[in-house]
Amino acid sequence: MTDFQATRRQFDLPEGMIYLNGNSLGPMPKAAVPAMTGFLNDEWRTELIKGWNTKNWFMQTNTLGDRVGRLIGAPEGTTVVGDTLSIKVFQAVAAGMAMVPDRRVILSDNGNFPTDLYMVEGLIKLKDAGYTLRTPDPEDVMAGITEEVGVVMITEVDYRTGRRHDMRAIIERAHSVGAVVVWDLAHSAGAVPVDVGGCDTDFAIGCTYKYLNGGPGAPAFIHVAPRLLDTVEPFLSGWYGHEAPFAFDKDYRPMPGRIERMRIGTPSIASFALLSAALDIWDGVDMGDLHAKSIALSELFIREVESRCPGLTLVSPRDPQARGSHVSFAYENGYAAMQALIAENVIGDFRAPDVMRFGITPLFIGEVEIMGAVDTLEAILKEERWKDERFQKRSLVT
Amino acid sequence: MTDFQATRRQFDLPEGMIYLNGNSLGPMPKAAVPAMTGFLNDEWRTELIKGWNTKNWFMQTNTLGDRVGRLIGAPEGTTVVGDTLSIKVFQAVAAGMAMVPDRRVILSDNGNFPTDLYMVEGLIKLKDAGYTLRTPDPEDVMAGITEEVGVVMITEVDYRTGRRHDMRAIIERAHSVGAVVVWDLAHSAGAVPVDVGGCDTDFAIGCTYKYLNGGPGAPAFIHVAPRLLDTVEPFLSGWYGHEAPFAFDKDYRPMPGRIERMRIGTPSIASFALLSAALDIWDGVDMGDLHAKSIALSELFIREVESRCPGLTLVSPRDPQARGSHVSFAYENGYAAMQALIAENVIGDFRAPDVMRFGITPLFIGEVEIMGAVDTLEAILKEERWKDERFQKRSLVT
Repeated sequence: MTDFQATRRQFDLPEGMIYLNGNSLGPMPKAAVPAMTGFLNDEWRTELIKGWNTKNWFMQTNTLGDRVGRLIGAPEGTTVVGDTLSIKVFQAVAAGMAMVPDRRVILSDNGNFPTDLYMVEGLIKLKDAGYTLRTPDPEDVMAGITEEVGVVMITEVDYRTGRRHDMRAIIERAHSVGAVVVWDLAHSAGAVPVDVGGCDTDFAIGCTYKYLNGGPGAPAFIHVAPRLLDTVEPFLSGWYGHEAPFAFDKDYRPMPGRIERMRIGTPSIASFALLSAALDIWDGVDMGDLHAKSIALSELFIREVESRCPGLTLVSPRDPQARGSHVSFAYENGYAAMQALIAENVIGDFRAPDVMRFGITPLFIGEVEIMGAVDTLEAILKEERWKDERFQKRSLVT
Repeated sequence: MTDFQATRRQFDLPEGMIYLNGNSLGPMPKAAVPAMTGFLNDEWRTELIKGWNTKNWFMQTNTLGDRVGRLIGAPEGTTVVGDTLSIKVFQAVAAGMAMVPDRRVILSDNGNFPTDLYMVEGLIKLKDAGYTLRTPDPEDVMAGITEEVGVVMITEVDYRTGRRHDMRAIIERAHSVGAVVVWDLAHSAGAVPVDVGGCDTDFAIGCTYKYLNGGPGAPAFIHVAPRLLDTVEPFLSGWYGHEAPFAFDKDYRPMPGRIERMRIGTPSIASFALLSAALDIWDGVDMGDLHAKSIALSELFIREVESRCPGLTLVSPRDPQARGSHVSFAYENGYAAMQALIAENVIGDFRAPDVMRFGITPLFIGEVEIMGAVDTLEAILKEERWKDERFQKRSLVT
């Protein structure tokens, strides 16, 4: 049984803050500071260039990748960290397109995270070979998977509503028509149980700054099915993915049969120190336990909001199995109400046009925070505090 | 006049080490630790998601970019940091190709850093439209710039020999035949005076972990000529380069007229904290002073090695204006001799087949270190200490 009191003690949360935004940027683990000062003083400062050998900097992409992999059901040796999620979208979809060279349709949905769609747009423009990106409504994705489709690129959990796609069903359908599947697990990894190995997805990608708590701009990850590791084309073929990176050959040869071939350029080793500290907390966590607690807290939150906060309408699926680990409500004064909440140190966020979003992160959130957040929201609504002028002004990140 | 005693005091170099590898990985500035703990404790820990607003995380790509830009002669607002150099190679060359859509030849040289060639190889494979990468000898680049050539992609300073291309002449020649130029300044930024603005290059890219001392895997940079900022195609079109990144539009619209359009995904903010501390040291440095000191130290080093270290042959250009800020010697027992030097705490590196490489970095290296390094090398050769068995074994990074 996972000890969530213990996980919670490992975070350094500001006094008095109720942080319901771990789905966007996770909080800092207490171990982040010693891990980082250790890296600075005992690795970079003292080892300097030798750190690539003596501190294993070069293979942290893989050791950290395997630790993320465990949380998404990936077998060892099939996941690496590095780059940004946007780059990994590009890399995975480009590789997928090459696996079905005779097809010209990429299927996603209009609930996908925008940067995923942007990156594919850029890729299509770069290829300049008649590709089309289709973005039907999420509920029409299954019907849209036809023999025209080369690559299906889907984000499992919708960043606004928390609606969850049926990963297994989509993969089966895609494979049955000969399409390749890329899953974006940005809102899944560390949020819900995922079994990329059992589902036999072709690619899975995601980020580590949300539920995994690696810090702002922490590295992305990519998983590739073992059956593809011999043949998958990196396209973004940098020296870090070369068969012999230190031979400085003139020609690129992808690392044969290994996930290293999806590595690109030199990753930030400092960011790996933070991610490593964050993953230490995850090492003791069972994803089943986590999901059970996420559901219990989410159900409590929904029940309390619906009974005490008039005007808010649940836009997340009511079925907990069809949700990720955040809960969203539509509210016509949602922007100002969220600013009022934040002013009271209850941190959620807002997504246009009217969605108030709350991350339910059992590693550091319990019933006390859930009830406290609803108490504050109820008071804001009752006293119409959201009408205050200072809550109307739009800031850069909402 | 730049005070190099002052710059040197700002680095935390291990006691007794002579570090002649700042051309590969710069040493840690003393300010790195407080800068990083400040970021962790006063930004991530306390601000959490609000840091994107309150701590200006979102625009550090640009504030840091401008500070790097000053060192390469880039006007304000034309340089951003982020991603890896491999990604920036891809992005710049892809954009360049689109500017001359009727040409199918990319010209580089066989002295270019391998990952630059690898990334273009991958790009060509992805485009699958009959492109060719030509890599003549460096001295044949000028003659190779013909009307067939669409993009000229050159690294100014050769990573092995330190040979320096004539940036202005190559740009003039390329522009005269209608080609676009991408300069890789990995071994130039912070090493030699560069004037990307005055030379009117189309693109310049580079990394910040060598002479700029941003730490292992510190972010890359990209500069785009002001005249191109309205039209340049990002291709790697992530949300960070969108006109309205927080509007979460479904379609990509590049930030009009601004360098932000070359940003891709969410960068590591922790790595920015380190880079910022490293650039503080550069703020007081005049590149002319730096270059003068680099030349004086390099000339001293060459003179001393040539008079005291038989068997070593200079492979760097003898003309200091034709060199970057590292000096290389060929030596048939170079690998073992370098390991013997490293065992004596004199750190240079080795590049196959026989090149011993020494970075001359005036920010923290002076005559004492130069003479100390040559003393040690002389003794190793005289006593044939390089024959020791433990110096024969090849390690991952040499």
